[in-house]
Amino acid sequence: MILNDQNIEDANKSALSDHQKQYDNLKSTLSDKHDLDAIIQKLKDFQVAIPSWALGTGGTRFGRYGGGGEPRTLEEKMYDVGLIHKLNQNSGAISLHIPWDIPENPEAIRQLASNLNLKFDAVNSNTFQDQEDAKYSYKYGSLSHVDAAVRQQAIDHNKEVIDYGKDLGSKSLTVWLADGSSHPGQNNFRKAFERTYESLQEIYNHLPADWKVFIEYKPYEPYFYSMVIQDWGTSHLLAQKLGDKALSLVDLGHHLPNTNIEQIVATLMMQNKLGGFHFNDSKFGDDDLTVGSLKPYQLFLIFNELVDGMLNTSNPDLSWMIDASHNMKDPLEDLLQSVDAILLAYAQALVVDRKALDQAQESNDITGAQEILQNAYRMDLRPLLAEARRQAGAALNPIKAYRQFKVRDQLIDERGLKTISTGL
Amino acid sequence: MILNDQNIEDANKSALSDHQKQYDNLKSTLSDKHDLDAIIQKLKDFQVAIPSWALGTGGTRFGRYGGGGEPRTLEEKMYDVGLIHKLNQNSGAISLHIPWDIPENPEAIRQLASNLNLKFDAVNSNTFQDQEDAKYSYKYGSLSHVDAAVRQQAIDHNKEVIDYGKDLGSKSLTVWLADGSSHPGQNNFRKAFERTYESLQEIYNHLPADWKVFIEYKPYEPYFYSMVIQDWGTSHLLAQKLGDKALSLVDLGHHLPNTNIEQIVATLMMQNKLGGFHFNDSKFGDDDLTVGSLKPYQLFLIFNELVDGMLNTSNPDLSWMIDASHNMKDPLEDLLQSVDAILLAYAQALVVDRKALDQAQESNDITGAQEILQNAYRMDLRPLLAEARRQAGAALNPIKAYRQFKVRDQLIDERGLKTISTGL
Amino acid sequence: MILNDQNIEDANKSALSDHQKQYDNLKSTLSDKHDLDAIIQKLKDFQVAIPSWALGTGGTRFGRYGGGGEPRTLEEKMYDVGLIHKLNQNSGAISLHIPWDIPENPEAIRQLASNLNLKFDAVNSNTFQDQEDAKYSYKYGSLSHVDAAVRQQAIDHNKEVIDYGKDLGSKSLTVWLADGSSHPGQNNFRKAFERTYESLQEIYNHLPADWKVFIEYKPYEPYFYSMVIQDWGTSHLLAQKLGDKALSLVDLGHHLPNTNIEQIVATLMMQNKLGGFHFNDSKFGDDDLTVGSLKPYQLFLIFNELVDGMLNTSNPDLSWMIDASHNMKDPLEDLLQSVDAILLAYAQALVVDRKALDQAQESNDITGAQEILQNAYRMDLRPLLAEARRQAGAALNPIKAYRQFKVRDQLIDERGLKTISTGL
Amino acid sequence: MILNDQNIEDANKSALSDHQKQYDNLKSTLSDKHDLDAIIQKLKDFQVAIPSWALGTGGTRFGRYGGGGEPRTLEEKMYDVGLIHKLNQNSGAISLHIPWDIPENPEAIRQLASNLNLKFDAVNSNTFQDQEDAKYSYKYGSLSHVDAAVRQQAIDHNKEVIDYGKDLGSKSLTVWLADGSSHPGQNNFRKAFERTYESLQEIYNHLPADWKVFIEYKPYEPYFYSMVIQDWGTSHLLAQKLGDKALSLVDLGHHLPNTNIEQIVATLMMQNKLGGFHFNDSKFGDDDLTVGSLKPYQLFLIFNELVDGMLNTSNPDLSWMIDASHNMKDPLEDLLQSVDAILLAYAQALVVDRKALDQAQESNDITGAQEILQNAYRMDLRPLLAEARRQAGAALNPIKAYRQFKVRDQLIDERGLKTISTGL
Repeated sequence: MILNDQNIEDANKSALSDHQKQYDNLKSTLSDKHDLDAIIQKLKDFQVAIPSWALGTGGTRFGRYGGGGEPRTLEEKMYDVGLIHKLNQNSGAISLHIPWDIPENPEAIRQLASNLNLKFDAVNSNTFQDQEDAKYSYKYGSLSHVDAAVRQQAIDHNKEVIDYGKDLGSKSLTVWLADGSSHPGQNNFRKAFERTYESLQEIYNHLPADWKVFIEYKPYEPYFYSMVIQDWGTSHLLAQKLGDKALSLVDLGHHLPNTNIEQIVATLMMQNKLGGFHFNDSKFGDDDLTVGSLKPYQLFLIFNELVDGMLNTSNPDLSWMIDASHNMKDPLEDLLQSVDAILLAYAQALVVDRKALDQAQESNDITGAQEILQNAYRMDLRPLLAEARRQAGAALNPIKAYRQFKVRDQLIDERGLKTISTGL
Repeated sequence: MILNDQNIEDANKSALSDHQKQYDNLKSTLSDKHDLDAIIQKLKDFQVAIPSWALGTGGTRFGRYGGGGEPRTLEEKMYDVGLIHKLNQNSGAISLHIPWDIPENPEAIRQLASNLNLKFDAVNSNTFQDQEDAKYSYKYGSLSHVDAAVRQQAIDHNKEVIDYGKDLGSKSLTVWLADGSSHPGQNNFRKAFERTYESLQEIYNHLPADWKVFIEYKPYEPYFYSMVIQDWGTSHLLAQKLGDKALSLVDLGHHLPNTNIEQIVATLMMQNKLGGFHFNDSKFGDDDLTVGSLKPYQLFLIFNELVDGMLNTSNPDLSWMIDASHNMKDPLEDLLQSVDAILLAYAQALVVDRKALDQAQESNDITGAQEILQNAYRMDLRPLLAEARRQAGAALNPIKAYRQFKVRDQLIDERGLKTISTGL
Repeated sequence: MILNDQNIEDANKSALSDHQKQYDNLKSTLSDKHDLDAIIQKLKDFQVAIPSWALGTGGTRFGRYGGGGEPRTLEEKMYDVGLIHKLNQNSGAISLHIPWDIPENPEAIRQLASNLNLKFDAVNSNTFQDQEDAKYSYKYGSLSHVDAAVRQQAIDHNKEVIDYGKDLGSKSLTVWLADGSSHPGQNNFRKAFERTYESLQEIYNHLPADWKVFIEYKPYEPYFYSMVIQDWGTSHLLAQKLGDKALSLVDLGHHLPNTNIEQIVATLMMQNKLGGFHFNDSKFGDDDLTVGSLKPYQLFLIFNELVDGMLNTSNPDLSWMIDASHNMKDPLEDLLQSVDAILLAYAQALVVDRKALDQAQESNDITGAQEILQNAYRMDLRPLLAEARRQAGAALNPIKAYRQFKVRDQLIDERGLKTISTGL
Repeated sequence: MILNDQNIEDANKSALSDHQKQYDNLKSTLSDKHDLDAIIQKLKDFQVAIPSWALGTGGTRFGRYGGGGEPRTLEEKMYDVGLIHKLNQNSGAISLHIPWDIPENPEAIRQLASNLNLKFDAVNSNTFQDQEDAKYSYKYGSLSHVDAAVRQQAIDHNKEVIDYGKDLGSKSLTVWLADGSSHPGQNNFRKAFERTYESLQEIYNHLPADWKVFIEYKPYEPYFYSMVIQDWGTSHLLAQKLGDKALSLVDLGHHLPNTNIEQIVATLMMQNKLGGFHFNDSKFGDDDLTVGSLKPYQLFLIFNELVDGMLNTSNPDLSWMIDASHNMKDPLEDLLQSVDAILLAYAQALVVDRKALDQAQESNDITGAQEILQNAYRMDLRPLLAEARRQAGAALNPIKAYRQFKVRDQLIDERGLKTISTGL
């Protein structure tokens, strides 16, 4: 299924005059202090990659309740991302996972991407599952494994992923190293770290000149006592040792309870070492829920640091991606809600009165600083987002349009009720 | 210092036309689905008690950095609450703490309260500190102490607090039992519970016919291994055993990391056993920060349950109070921000489209249910709050007015720079 | 594979004299204050049920790395439990899960159990997964579902589980209700609770006169915003309403970070409402790791309350079960380690000098109370356990014997390298 | 009060033959695999500094219940440490806090220390409280303050602390920077970090050639939104930038829930950047409870890493200190229990069969690795500790001896019942 410009125009028609009124109201409040066109341009430029594995229904260790019309091939996944992007014009990239999404015919895949107006964001390796034909098992680790042969298999896989990525025009590799231990004594922390570092060096050396590698961290799961890269400090240590092309990647769900993530973001950016971002939301652990559905204010505070860092540090451009698991909702609806929440938080951060905030901070006016942040957060900026989408040719209200077009029903018609995506 | 109607009028004058425009805009969006006058009436009726101990600067175990112009007497505390209430007309009650606020002359205090338009909310006992002249120490407990004489002292204190409250027209007693243990083995859990129950029975029997007693719970602090009333389940167990006048009290900061507090609220209300609420916000523990300053969406979700419970259960009217510690901000500014955040969350909960939400829930339309909640939350309802305040004779923007009137400077002039409130 | 008495005798032979010496040493320390024969009898009497689903390799949502020789049928699972029980004589019960372990021929199964010296502990229902032939899906809930037809299917399933259990001589049903929500707004908490209560009533009414039903609770997973039965308070509320046959069940992994579980145990026992226990250990969430492998002191403190409760309350006999997931270790080795850790904690609790502890508590001698608990905990009681096992005809060192007999190799020979247990 | 050799001898007399028997039993088990004399030497060499502020009763923000006989002067604090050290011979160092313990007459203080057989460990600065005569307040920060004059005052204070330390023979400075924020927006994270770094550089440059500076980290408290040095990663970043003399310091209570501290220890040691250790125990936050009283197995796992790091890395010698708050127990008893728990964990780590552990790790024998660790942990090594103490001239059972000597009663006689230590 493909949506075209006319579809979008039709969907927007009836809501346009209402939108215009609301946007005008908002403009009258904001235009004193802000260059709204510049903000809208930033909103239009902001592109969040959709991971190929998030287009199907996810599950837990207790099982999976599938949905209908799920994409069965890389091409179908790309069509799904194309639908999202057509609706919001903020999802113009896809992030592939190897081996779930091996592009058999890179040329055709590139062409399809071009047709759908999509780019290829970071490619993702997988050494947390055994593949059917694998010589060695990752049950006891991959890049950190005690056995050099297993490590080499994992290194070679990462190199191969880079090669697939090169074919498609990707410019970065994300390494989520799931290695760790579930029992005290199982791992020697020191040796596991050293082996991991050596493995990463080999992968690093395989990177093309204009590539980066992102080192993800996570405190637990799938292992429940230790993870080799347990926190941003460990990720940063590895990235420092590896070199300029290595940067840390923050996944919002990969933190212990109560972690101040926004401060981690600020710290990494001032070291010019933040590479990318995986968006989701959570209440308990790596719950992988819809972005902004539980802690929208934290999301705003994180964007507040991101915007500050983009203005005031030399940190390289960031790679943005959603990394969520849609166990109950229609994945496409969930992704639309997530992208919307991301853009909303970004917009809120963009309308923070930074000069006033700076003054409040310099004079220790804590009440005043809070008022400034809350003022930005409490505004209803949805008309601003809608206007950016309108200008970009997207739907004023993507979820509503999605439902009007009965997209899921059509996908079920096309693909069947009992499809299962490759992946988890 | 006292603010009068003319002060408020002056403060509002310049902002009135802007307010009117913004409120009209909001009205045009909301009035289809909502009876705005009814909502405004609810907002005007909502009164949050200010605890007498929150009017001075608080501290941590590491120390306290005092502020200036702090109230030195019960009367001065009441004047402070009077100032807040004059500015927002939502703080028409004060919650006293005995022995910090013993009303030597109840008649005069009642008269002052009447002049300031204040009521007396729940009275609070204190068995977590030794008083100068106390015969027994609470170092090892009070209502749960192994020694019957200590328990009796604590019981008698609570009875005395009730008696003070009767003199002032209060209708409830809040028991925050700080008893617990910091070391495994220190307490016998069973016996400590039983002794507590017996002590509470005696207090319960002293309650006037139209009074209630609220049983607070807390997982830790000031003890760091166990608290006698560690959670809502224990509080509820005691309230069930005691009788109809006993209800549980929820303090937002008194939960373990990640607790779903809104569900606790719903559970207690459906048992008709939620008595009161202590508002604050926190990131780590009982941080006692400004309400809504860290997790405003959670606050909204809690109000969503409170509104649902007020509509659909027979739970008695609730006692609302702020319970925060102002270690860094001007306490009055902090309280104004807190009350404002409470009213905002209440307003958001009031504009939830409950019929649509119910339909979404009944049809398992999870995406839709999220859209409905987020729609209410993402609206900018500040003009609605301002309108309610305007109608009630309060300031359109209380914080701004507070600063315009240079209230703190005047209080410092009146009371001095180095005053210290009674209390913590 | 079956181990017989001669096997055990052979395994013990070489270690007997060493054991005797160590046990004599221990006896000389302990026999002043304790009736060692009585303690040994209690250790011999203590039987922990093995859940049928724990005999195969478990996994996470990211995948599963299978082991070899896993049981393929109910019979093979029983043989595995038989092996464990033969080695330690403390695992003489199996807890079945329906529909993974439907006993097609109850008579033959009962006979096999008798041959292996096993009893049938609580039976477990499953409404957290859809079965192949199910009419309705549990994607959006089971006993709490908005649709009465789905609820009825789940109720009927539970009744059927009771019926299977009756055939085998089981005396209790464990309900782990996985219902909950992952998104705010998805569920109406109040209605979900009420529907759950009504469903449980119907199940309760189906219980034979001498049966009990255990209500498990869990704060999160598989849902990540709310669980219908989120904590012991909710479980207890339901058990109170249902009646005497309904009791709460504590699973050690089903708590928020830092929960004082031992106090919950004490509270439920003093209400005579603790029904059963699911043992495991965890660092982060419901990690389902080997019992005692991370927080052995907490396990001891819990047993300290259990022993106190068994001595001083009228709580009915408890149903003990391991509920762990063996993702990396050989499941049988893991279970042997778990049972051993449970018995060790039980033994430690049994040698606590309760009279001295009571005195220390009554005199607020906190240091002394700690010394008493630590004295029991720091003793090396492994010879006591070995002696109890020796007297019961079990191996002095079950893990060592298991490895000597090369049990896993034999199971792989019998069943193959790539078997997969029914279940998760 | 002073204890002499004869006192100790008297205290030990009656227990000696029992001790000898128990130690012989243990020796017969251990001497196959271990050089017990070498282990005993290590235990004798291990010295844990006592912080001067831990000798009086601590409190919480809710108050403080004082004990009797508390030391009123630096000299009395040293006598208290002298008592502890005489009893256990493992506490031969004191860690001073400036300005609570300014040595007016360094010569006399050094002489007293020599008489009591005490060394001076790291000195501690304090910029988390305002001193009476301070020109500037630290209410809004110290080394990170927005105002250069405040920063300079804090820098100068740290330099002064170094100078005091030089006079006494101390070789290191511990900086616990309590700076942070309690409200989003209050601080600019980037600028606060940069200012802190600049301030630390100036302090670093004041260090004598043979000194070190330890950078402590803490996630929250006394601020409840952010701390400038929130975690080991931030501490390590600063230590890296500052130079070789700067190292990180781990306080066991300064971590978010569920943090794998032992892995942090391993990571810092392999970077040769772990400087010191603050021991305590906790269940919820920085509870500052008796070492080993809640999570003794975690303490063992940490020592397991420390021992591994001491054997296999070039990390410099560590500075060991207790940092606890004795709110309820007699501080001296509490400290004796803490030192005992530390030594026990150290002994357990020393008897781990490292060769076998290494083999188990290299062959992914997880069950085996667990058995090896648990075997060391489950042994009763108290006779080993007693023997080390006996050889060093300390009491076999320090707590028991302390009570026999009625030390607290004597201190109350000497100093009075209502003394209050300087400090918190």
